[in-house]
Amino acid sequence: MSELLEQIKNENDIHHIHSEDYPALAREIRRFLVRSISHTGGHLASNLGVVELTMALHLCCHFPEDKVVWDVGHQCYTHKILTGRKDGFQHLRSYGGMSGFPKRKESPCDVLDTGHSSTSVGAALGFARARDMRGEGHKIFAVIGDGALSGGMAYEALNNAARLKSNLVIVLNDNQMSISKNVGGMSNYLGKIRTNRNYTGLKEDVERILQKTPWIGDALTDRIRNAKDVLKRLFIPGMLFEDMGITYIGPIDGHDIKQMITAFRSALKSNKAVLVHVMTQKGKGYPPAQKNPSAYHGVAPFFIKDGRERRQGGRPITYTEVFSGEMLRLGREHKELAAITAAMPSGTGLAGFAREYPDRFFDVGIAEEHAVTFAAGMAAGGVRPVVALYSTFLQRAYDQIIHDVCINALPVVFAVDRAGLVGSDGETHQGIFDLAFLMQMPGMTVIAPKNVWELREMLRFGIGMDAPVAMRYPRGAAYQGLEEHTEPIVLGKSEWICRERQVALFALGSMVETAVEVREQLKEKGYQVSLINARFAKPLDEECLRQVADGHELVVPMEEGVITGGFCQAVAEWCRANSSVRVCPIALPDAFIQHGSVAELKREYGLDAEGIVKKIEMRRA
Amino acid sequence: MSELLEQIKNENDIHHIHSEDYPALAREIRRFLVRSISHTGGHLASNLGVVELTMALHLCCHFPEDKVVWDVGHQCYTHKILTGRKDGFQHLRSYGGMSGFPKRKESPCDVLDTGHSSTSVGAALGFARARDMRGEGHKIFAVIGDGALSGGMAYEALNNAARLKSNLVIVLNDNQMSISKNVGGMSNYLGKIRTNRNYTGLKEDVERILQKTPWIGDALTDRIRNAKDVLKRLFIPGMLFEDMGITYIGPIDGHDIKQMITAFRSALKSNKAVLVHVMTQKGKGYPPAQKNPSAYHGVAPFFIKDGRERRQGGRPITYTEVFSGEMLRLGREHKELAAITAAMPSGTGLAGFAREYPDRFFDVGIAEEHAVTFAAGMAAGGVRPVVALYSTFLQRAYDQIIHDVCINALPVVFAVDRAGLVGSDGETHQGIFDLAFLMQMPGMTVIAPKNVWELREMLRFGIGMDAPVAMRYPRGAAYQGLEEHTEPIVLGKSEWICRERQVALFALGSMVETAVEVREQLKEKGYQVSLINARFAKPLDEECLRQVADGHELVVPMEEGVITGGFCQAVAEWCRANSSVRVCPIALPDAFIQHGSVAELKREYGLDAEGIVKKIEMRRA
Repeated sequence: MSELLEQIKNENDIHHIHSEDYPALAREIRRFLVRSISHTGGHLASNLGVVELTMALHLCCHFPEDKVVWDVGHQCYTHKILTGRKDGFQHLRSYGGMSGFPKRKESPCDVLDTGHSSTSVGAALGFARARDMRGEGHKIFAVIGDGALSGGMAYEALNNAARLKSNLVIVLNDNQMSISKNVGGMSNYLGKIRTNRNYTGLKEDVERILQKTPWIGDALTDRIRNAKDVLKRLFIPGMLFEDMGITYIGPIDGHDIKQMITAFRSALKSNKAVLVHVMTQKGKGYPPAQKNPSAYHGVAPFFIKDGRERRQGGRPITYTEVFSGEMLRLGREHKELAAITAAMPSGTGLAGFAREYPDRFFDVGIAEEHAVTFAAGMAAGGVRPVVALYSTFLQRAYDQIIHDVCINALPVVFAVDRAGLVGSDGETHQGIFDLAFLMQMPGMTVIAPKNVWELREMLRFGIGMDAPVAMRYPRGAAYQGLEEHTEPIVLGKSEWICRERQVALFALGSMVETAVEVREQLKEKGYQVSLINARFAKPLDEECLRQVADGHELVVPMEEGVITGGFCQAVAEWCRANSSVRVCPIALPDAFIQHGSVAELKREYGLDAEGIVKKIEMRRA
Repeated sequence: MSELLEQIKNENDIHHIHSEDYPALAREIRRFLVRSISHTGGHLASNLGVVELTMALHLCCHFPEDKVVWDVGHQCYTHKILTGRKDGFQHLRSYGGMSGFPKRKESPCDVLDTGHSSTSVGAALGFARARDMRGEGHKIFAVIGDGALSGGMAYEALNNAARLKSNLVIVLNDNQMSISKNVGGMSNYLGKIRTNRNYTGLKEDVERILQKTPWIGDALTDRIRNAKDVLKRLFIPGMLFEDMGITYIGPIDGHDIKQMITAFRSALKSNKAVLVHVMTQKGKGYPPAQKNPSAYHGVAPFFIKDGRERRQGGRPITYTEVFSGEMLRLGREHKELAAITAAMPSGTGLAGFAREYPDRFFDVGIAEEHAVTFAAGMAAGGVRPVVALYSTFLQRAYDQIIHDVCINALPVVFAVDRAGLVGSDGETHQGIFDLAFLMQMPGMTVIAPKNVWELREMLRFGIGMDAPVAMRYPRGAAYQGLEEHTEPIVLGKSEWICRERQVALFALGSMVETAVEVREQLKEKGYQVSLINARFAKPLDEECLRQVADGHELVVPMEEGVITGGFCQAVAEWCRANSSVRVCPIALPDAFIQHGSVAELKREYGLDAEGIVKKIEMRRA
């Protein structure tokens, strides 16, 4: 069944496979990927799309000397298989198991840990400059999707790659998608290249005509320095790249290994940056994924037969879904409400808003920087934009939030989804910095809801504010408890849930649910425990903190974020500067957090109820 | 002398000027600008370049209904004059006086406060979408320099502007410069357009030929859908923009008002985004600036006659110069040392390194995101890059520092220049956030030198570390005192300058110089004062803090940065959590800091010696 795959035990073993067996090997890899991911979950469609592309790259390379930089990195599964990590797929993306992204610690064939988009060309250019400085001669490839090309960094890198005087091969993996459908001018341009099947024929025709018609040639050459340039301009796809100074080869069938090897070898001969435009199909070889690649981008364990999720029964409602529903309602009430996302209409829950209010919905592509500055322009122009981004991707727009939104004090609402631990995507995707970086921005209000009801209310509150507001909420199931606590949202005011003595749990957002559990466990142990829903990370409710500090022995600020510069530090600072109450901050450490389930990670880092109770008891001892 | 200019008292007054007087008005404006800036200092070359362009825009607009978004914003002086703010130039850029950048608070004709590059197209697109949503009909212009086009955000915005189905005019102000000479593929491309004077004639020729030769037309039209498209592709400059979906008009003489008005009017008729390519000359009309626009980008007060600076006598050495010299030396010692800057070779002091080691110097253009990811690639590839950026522009690369450098724990040295208060450029340029955002990044080491000697040593220390390091230092004169304190730099170790009792000044970087003064004043008042040079903002020297906390009544952490999440907060947190010592943090408040001289700003915000002494005495009372 997997005869060929069994011969691949280490990097470079693919060189021992006969070329007539390449298609069979590709089939085996696909079968392995579908089977494996159906058990563990993971990135499916993108990995099925690049099986042949990865094989062709490996056939042109010798690892670990040669370098392949994968953009984003979620499409590296075949690369992992071909570098001897097949067995790791058993525990893919689980705590302690193999990562779903390139990891330098896993293999010398992974050259850079990645997870965010549009970085590969820039990093590869760095590798190329380092190679040249050190007088080395290895090959360097960047593999970038057409979706990632909408990110400005990719353009900045291409702009610089144009000046390289040594070899660098940029493989444009064009599957006409990011996670969702691609948008924008560049995407349309690539579409034109793809659909124009006449390029080659046309070019030959014109060359023939020009050759046979000397008087035209004369009239032209007077003014045109190089007729070839003109021909290229007329008939070669990819002229946009050529205009920028990047040699273009393509489009090439990304499922035809021999064609790709020929193109790569030809590209490798150049002494400059070459872009090889490769057409692949997301989900290739697995019909459900092929039909609906967006739904099979990242998947939970599923039945191979029909692609249905293995998980049985109803799924609890997520914060994203609550946000989604409320945006629909608010769209009806407020005619000047707009919604912006960066290539994540489904992920952020804005697909419904997009269908209902297409004129007020803007998917800007993978371009978080633009998303925020665009929102600033809209807000200054008199409408009320909500920018929905994942916490980790919002990092891209740090400067734009300060420079375009906060300095101008504009009413932009940031819906910061996937804030806190996100689980199996690991280091690059954990949403643990947003509290710290948003709280340091003058004029920013930072809020986090405790439950379903509060997310809705906070969104309304945010849209009603005439200043920048960021609301953060985690991935996954929304908390449905504490539904009787519905005190209206007031700027800078926390909400008392239980008022006792001794220990005060001062919890932000997702940690309120945990605090309820912590309180129960502490009560069982005989403690008197207050519980306060902080609501505002900024501005802090100092009046409430005063009461908390005065009425308790120990204050326990709790956040799902990094300790440095975040909510806990601010609360601790205030308490210690203004009272003598003891403080026991509960937050994530000053470290990157690896992949694993959210529950496992919380246990590991002491953010689960047991860990918190233990820490509180130690602190009181 | 200024007859025409005197008729301009408010916005739209330019409409009353006779068109034959436009050149005379332009001359008057230039004369006014040169005279005025020669007294106050300010941005000279860029403003002299856009006099006619700004006039043409104003002649096509009615303010404040119509919107002009100025990229960066330093070229808005003529716009300020034409909107009735001529008198403000008397106190340009001084504390309480008129800003050198667009400011919403100054005038309804300034639509957005700006200062960073490459944001105008995105913001203008936001204005356009807001206008369309609200059913308004005003005009919207973005004015972007060719330098700013190297920023990825501009490309992201163009990519999205291509989908606009209403009018937006993007004026490409092409002066072939950012602050320094432009670099990269896009710049070369614009160069080709500029130098090819044959476009128009050529186009006519070919149209004639094709019309006269039906059989060629036939052979072609079989395969080409639209012959016009092909002609455009062959002969129209700006095809790169057209490929992206943006209508291109140009190149136009940016000093010919009538030509520009015609182009703008034609562009305004389109129901999509149109790019008008306007050629201007930086420094136009003032020979010294025209000859050396880079040197006359931002100027101190000067003599009009020859352009010499008014300031007499020797200028004290700056930290930038010290960095510059040390990079030269280090480049000799370390063959694998590379230097990277983003369009600031002179400003960051790397021009010397660039001359000496051209193969190891990389100016990536205005593209901080790329600069950092590129550096990560270089470091992973085995060389040692130093990325020199201004603090405020480093904000652009927040995510890249986390994602590409810190997660990968790569040895990239960040030389963070202009860290702290920068003075007359104001809110958008103050370097006050770097400590807070760098300290929150796991694995980052953050250092700041006390004086000339220490900057050199710290740079060596940073290059010797096998992990990310950021060294921050301020704009302006380097401190030459404390030259006898030369304890070797050790990771995470502070340096004791004076060891006494009572008050401990725990100062970081530039604040050590102030602390020396503070100490003198406190001593005169009879206090016992220790002085510690913190050196490391991260990791904090906890051993030293223990000694400080144990041996003093009051600890005074001092930083030139925002209080929220910064050095002071970390020191205060540690002291309060681990001792009972009182803490008096000296930092900038949670606010944006306006323009003014650094001395004035320090006085205003209590960061000067007097203010600090006063605060310490209050704290002790």
